Amino acid sequence: MSVLVVGSVALDTVETPFGSVTEVLGGSAVYFAAATSLYTKVNLVGVVGTDFPAEHIRFLAERGVDTRGLAVVEGQTFRWVGCYDYEQNITQTLDTRLNVFADFHPTLPPGYEGSELVFLANIDPDLQYEVLSQVSGARLRVVDTMNFWIRGKGESLSRTISAVDIVIMDESEVRLLARSQNVIAAAKSILEMGPRAVIIKRGEYGALMVSDTDYFVAPAYPVAQVKDPTGAGDSFAGGLLGYLDQAKEITPQALRKAIVHGTIVASFTIADFSIDGLRSLRRADIAHRYREFKRFTHFDDKESTS
Amino acid sequence: MSVLVVGSVALDTVETPFGSVTEVLGGSAVYFAAATSLYTKVNLVGVVGTDFPAEHIRFLAERGVDTRGLAVVEGQTFRWVGCYDYEQNITQTLDTRLNVFADFHPTLPPGYEGSELVFLANIDPDLQYEVLSQVSGARLRVVDTMNFWIRGKGESLSRTISAVDIVIMDESEVRLLARSQNVIAAAKSILEMGPRAVIIKRGEYGALMVSDTDYFVAPAYPVAQVKDPTGAGDSFAGGLLGYLDQAKEITPQALRKAIVHGTIVASFTIADFSIDGLRSLRRADIAHRYREFKRFTHFDDKESTS
Repeated sequence: MSVLVVGSVALDTVETPFGSVTEVLGGSAVYFAAATSLYTKVNLVGVVGTDFPAEHIRFLAERGVDTRGLAVVEGQTFRWVGCYDYEQNITQTLDTRLNVFADFHPTLPPGYEGSELVFLANIDPDLQYEVLSQVSGARLRVVDTMNFWIRGKGESLSRTISAVDIVIMDESEVRLLARSQNVIAAAKSILEMGPRAVIIKRGEYGALMVSDTDYFVAPAYPVAQVKDPTGAGDSFAGGLLGYLDQAKEITPQALRKAIVHGTIVASFTIADFSIDGLRSLRRADIAHRYREFKRFTHFDDKESTS
Repeated sequence: MSVLVVGSVALDTVETPFGSVTEVLGGSAVYFAAATSLYTKVNLVGVVGTDFPAEHIRFLAERGVDTRGLAVVEGQTFRWVGCYDYEQNITQTLDTRLNVFADFHPTLPPGYEGSELVFLANIDPDLQYEVLSQVSGARLRVVDTMNFWIRGKGESLSRTISAVDIVIMDESEVRLLARSQNVIAAAKSILEMGPRAVIIKRGEYGALMVSDTDYFVAPAYPVAQVKDPTGAGDSFAGGLLGYLDQAKEITPQALRKAIVHGTIVASFTIADFSIDGLRSLRRADIAHRYREFKRFTHFDDKESTS
């Protein structure tokens, strides 16, 4: 069993009220892989420049991430500079340098085509669609996207969404894509595009899953200090797909547990900069928070007596 | 068993994207009583002017609300004019006329002092404190407040908070009161003021309860159309205290179920203007959504297999 991820690999410079870091390991595919590798084997597809520190590739390889799909090409690695103002609740991108990522064209090395689960992180929807055609035997295809593609490549994005099983998006992007302020109504109209489920990321409020027949609403695991929210969404997706890859069957019940695993992995990610909150994390730590989370959210474990 | 509520009784003029209403029944004590009366007997304390339509008092009386504590005095009833812009996520107060409410001084008629549960809706914290001294035998004292009192009467508010069992507040107000952006950290610092639990209202994201030993995180019951959010918070508190008044004992488990009842009653309130969403509501409707809500939120009803 294995999970394929296609997305960005970056060097991030981030400032939050709790400190700042310069050119640390980041990118959607990295956050995803750091999370998923806690559960299962990951096949990573991305691109970096020749300036990318070898230690980062070693880190991924040591976690069992197959990095044959990580192309190293002449030039600079993708760089992102951002800051968070918690008071104002603002995430600000100060600088984006795509560098070698501008010409990224995902190519799957031999063996990757057998990946059972596929996560298309937030990249050009035309590239996402190309990847899908190369993993036609996958059990589950999941896509993320963002406002940039919703506004600029709506038709391509619709094609990709119609070809996947699950869409994972931020709440504001769900509203933008569906042109509906009510998030439930918005999710239902995205379901009409084809996917079986829409999973809405709500940051500190957790996640909401809407399918044709079901809802699942999971709050976020409560944390008293958020050092750096970067990568929360991608590691959420990583925990989710990692758990699902290990599940015997992708049932509605397994999907619920997978969403909880996603929110728990994200709660560890945001406790530190870069992927540092995941470096020494063990499955036992996740299992501990899973039991806590159940205690924090279940309210009626016996027969309803309402 | 009975629940005492002290708060505003108003005539509201409201505009939302789904319509508008003029001088309809509103006010914190009314929304609370309309909700609580679904569960138990309510003793209401408030004030209206001689212009207050008798039909509204009849409506409350027919629901078993004791309105002997609703003073009718010469002058105009409290009026509030507001509008909601869902796109911008803005609640705007266009006009507030306190009228007879400006000189409101809560007086408990004979019998009210035996109320077992007490809800002090959002009024002057000095008045809230006066009420507390008149119901010293209550099993549970709950207070709500708002930014106006946090900014203008901080010391009085601290005295009231230190004398109650549970504080119910909006998320933004919890942050303001505790001067902490992280809502968990903010809630913990409010606990240090004396109450046993802080219940944070998060609107469409539900509610979060923080006590010294426990968390409980409940999302909102998902609704595809919010006609008018006015009164959601007070009817949430109403469902919560109504359920608790019926519970044999106020255990942590009962408090969790009570919070769920609160979010469910609020989900009916916002489906219509004024208290119209609660007029024909029956306990069976609440029980139905309670079972649905359990299905929407529980993810692991057997032993954890994470």
